[in-house]
Amino acid sequence: MSLTEVLDRIDSDLDAAVDRLMALLRIPSISTDPAYAAECDRAADWLVEDLRGLGVRAEKRATPGHPMVVGHVEGEGPHLLFYGHYDVQPVDPLELWDTPPFEPELQDTPKGRVLRGRGTSDDKGQLMTFVEACRAWKAVHGSLPCRITFFFEGEEESGSPSLVPFMKENREELTSDIALICDTGLFGHDTPAIVTMLRGMLQEEVTITGPSKDLHSGMFGGIARNPAHVLTDVLAALHDEKGAVTVPGFYDDVPELPPAIAAQWEALNFDAGKFLGEVGLKHPAGEEGRSGLEMIWSRPTAEVNGMWSGYTGEGFKTVLPSKAHAKISFRLVGDQDPHKISTAFRQFVRDRVPEDCTVDFVDGMGASPASAMSTEHPAFEAARGALSDEWPNAAAFVGCGGSIPIAGYFKSITGTDAMLIGFGRDDDQLHSPNEKYDLECFHKGIRSWARILDALT
Amino acid sequence: MSLTEVLDRIDSDLDAAVDRLMALLRIPSISTDPAYAAECDRAADWLVEDLRGLGVRAEKRATPGHPMVVGHVEGEGPHLLFYGHYDVQPVDPLELWDTPPFEPELQDTPKGRVLRGRGTSDDKGQLMTFVEACRAWKAVHGSLPCRITFFFEGEEESGSPSLVPFMKENREELTSDIALICDTGLFGHDTPAIVTMLRGMLQEEVTITGPSKDLHSGMFGGIARNPAHVLTDVLAALHDEKGAVTVPGFYDDVPELPPAIAAQWEALNFDAGKFLGEVGLKHPAGEEGRSGLEMIWSRPTAEVNGMWSGYTGEGFKTVLPSKAHAKISFRLVGDQDPHKISTAFRQFVRDRVPEDCTVDFVDGMGASPASAMSTEHPAFEAARGALSDEWPNAAAFVGCGGSIPIAGYFKSITGTDAMLIGFGRDDDQLHSPNEKYDLECFHKGIRSWARILDALT
Repeated sequence: MSLTEVLDRIDSDLDAAVDRLMALLRIPSISTDPAYAAECDRAADWLVEDLRGLGVRAEKRATPGHPMVVGHVEGEGPHLLFYGHYDVQPVDPLELWDTPPFEPELQDTPKGRVLRGRGTSDDKGQLMTFVEACRAWKAVHGSLPCRITFFFEGEEESGSPSLVPFMKENREELTSDIALICDTGLFGHDTPAIVTMLRGMLQEEVTITGPSKDLHSGMFGGIARNPAHVLTDVLAALHDEKGAVTVPGFYDDVPELPPAIAAQWEALNFDAGKFLGEVGLKHPAGEEGRSGLEMIWSRPTAEVNGMWSGYTGEGFKTVLPSKAHAKISFRLVGDQDPHKISTAFRQFVRDRVPEDCTVDFVDGMGASPASAMSTEHPAFEAARGALSDEWPNAAAFVGCGGSIPIAGYFKSITGTDAMLIGFGRDDDQLHSPNEKYDLECFHKGIRSWARILDALT
Repeated sequence: MSLTEVLDRIDSDLDAAVDRLMALLRIPSISTDPAYAAECDRAADWLVEDLRGLGVRAEKRATPGHPMVVGHVEGEGPHLLFYGHYDVQPVDPLELWDTPPFEPELQDTPKGRVLRGRGTSDDKGQLMTFVEACRAWKAVHGSLPCRITFFFEGEEESGSPSLVPFMKENREELTSDIALICDTGLFGHDTPAIVTMLRGMLQEEVTITGPSKDLHSGMFGGIARNPAHVLTDVLAALHDEKGAVTVPGFYDDVPELPPAIAAQWEALNFDAGKFLGEVGLKHPAGEEGRSGLEMIWSRPTAEVNGMWSGYTGEGFKTVLPSKAHAKISFRLVGDQDPHKISTAFRQFVRDRVPEDCTVDFVDGMGASPASAMSTEHPAFEAARGALSDEWPNAAAFVGCGGSIPIAGYFKSITGTDAMLIGFGRDDDQLHSPNEKYDLECFHKGIRSWARILDALT
């Protein structure tokens, strides 16, 4: 009965909830670019204000990087913690955006109404689904259903340098019965998903230096070592002809999929062609002999995320570059140790750099192991049921190709199990131009959290 | 006797000549970047004014690109044409310049006094050596020694798109007994050189497209084709383990060096280690079994001049890029046909691009064949003698690794032999930060032209 009232309240308050989200989206809180530090601060202030409106004891907490937002409300029953991040990815290439990334819009599209703008789906819109569920609950009941800790981060898109130290310093305060994390997606169009398997990540930046300065390719071309050639040799050697990563020992700690999980994934009838068709591709390009879901959920990868060398402007400059750079990320699974992989990768590069070149690596670009959730905690079944009530299809336990190290940190630092539930869709264009979040996902996401709060208390 | 007076005049007027050059150097006439079109125009105006001061009928001549400057003076004896270019290379990376590139300075260095700034050596400083020689001649004699045509280009650093059409339209006007070109260097520190062999150039820009947009490497990494990987595979395949270019048919029209030239080069005692030591390198990186001078003068090359893909900013963006780009230039020799090489290269790339990717090429980036001067023209021996009188070492006929297509155009369009004489040094940092031109080269360059004018008339 009272749940129905909360759900009705969510429906009637949706327009106002969208307006609140828009205000947060207008703050360009790009965490990876120091130029936007003040905007990250503004986003944190906005969230503190909003939480205080719910009667939450919320405050902005300083870190060496961007601030955390932490809030508490007391209550009976279980102690829940909710995590989200208020920072967003950079927006380049800006010219590919159809509307300004930080002037969010509600747009009607052939696929329905969408919220368009950077952060709509990753992660401001998702973060607010939980906040809005709490707002509706409080409007109906006068208080929140149980003890809840709110924990919002501002460095998730830039490797979370302050997260582990902050969680360790505030271990007691951040310890709960279960951590709820909203930064993932539905499976397919409308199958709610609880992520129980997450890939880890290692980020490397490599610079190869040849000549002491850029050279005239006429005067020196053909005799001077070109570091761009050295870099392409190294990167080309990173995969074999079967799509496997060639770094020695890379697969040592990669487990095969347990038959039970394999069977469950089989049942999801993942259509790799359709999945790739959404982005203009046809053929899975990963390891030969692996299924599409294995490629994105349970197999490790090495991807060049950026590379640059020499003259990249308009026209032509016949320069022989002094330096060549690449940003490379590894998605890690099972027991792969990021530090062990980093050491092996750096040796792999050094082994391929000729005597006349030097190679430099940037330390601390980001390293987190993969994590697997224990689904024994009763909250998992309770949440699965609540999600199945809201959506047309039954909820499923799935994997996630993205890296959400926070889940592992809750286990390792506070001993808390984490439950990852999110409402994004594959076509949300995360990290890309024209990012969007379906209004339906925002709406049903809020309703889903209300149902989960009801089921857990 | 009168030559001595001209040389004395050059010595006494040197400071004023430097001031005039500085004024030209302050104009940022970067031809490859459309943003600087007006500055190219200003540089042309400046030269027209200066030539008129010498009694030359000079004017700025419009082209679809940057203007040409053409001037004439009548006179007895041979008809000489002098060519130089007033445009310069871009200046990035700007942070590596010790002084602003377009605020030229006269600096005292351990190696002597230098003119520092973009264009000092390539080619404004060299262009002015001839103009100043004429100025001194006129001051002493009241007129120039013979009929002279001045021909200055503003697109040399951006592939000279307007040059051939302009030369064809104005063939008669630009036909002379011999064309003098000042855009080359001394051999070693102070051996004057007349270039009789020039490499040609082919410039290609390649774009490989995979996904229709940038993707989240967590969601798509491991299953989606990464065009950066495809590009590195292609570029890594461009050379074999012996440093030879692997494009099919690339060496078909590459001649072996004539024994006479080979012997002459042998006598120059080129020290590849010392040459490379100037730029922080030790080992020749070209084709196995070729001498250093062959690598830079008589062998063709393929060099990556620029490449870029994905996120290249500060921090890390775990994006799987939609596109990967490269600018590649080929130095051509002998009878290599730029168009034939372009076709073979593009097929080489297409053969390595998987079904899920598309490849695009930019047409008209620049293509010119190699050229060899006929040294039978008596002017070559006359100039060699004049240069030998000015410098401590006897002048030599040499090759040049850079591409100066203009030399070939004079032969093919006007039927005129071209004589390439320049006074740059290997450490001038052409096309690089902190470009300089030794004051001694500027001074003795002016004196050299006065001697050559005397020898030719």
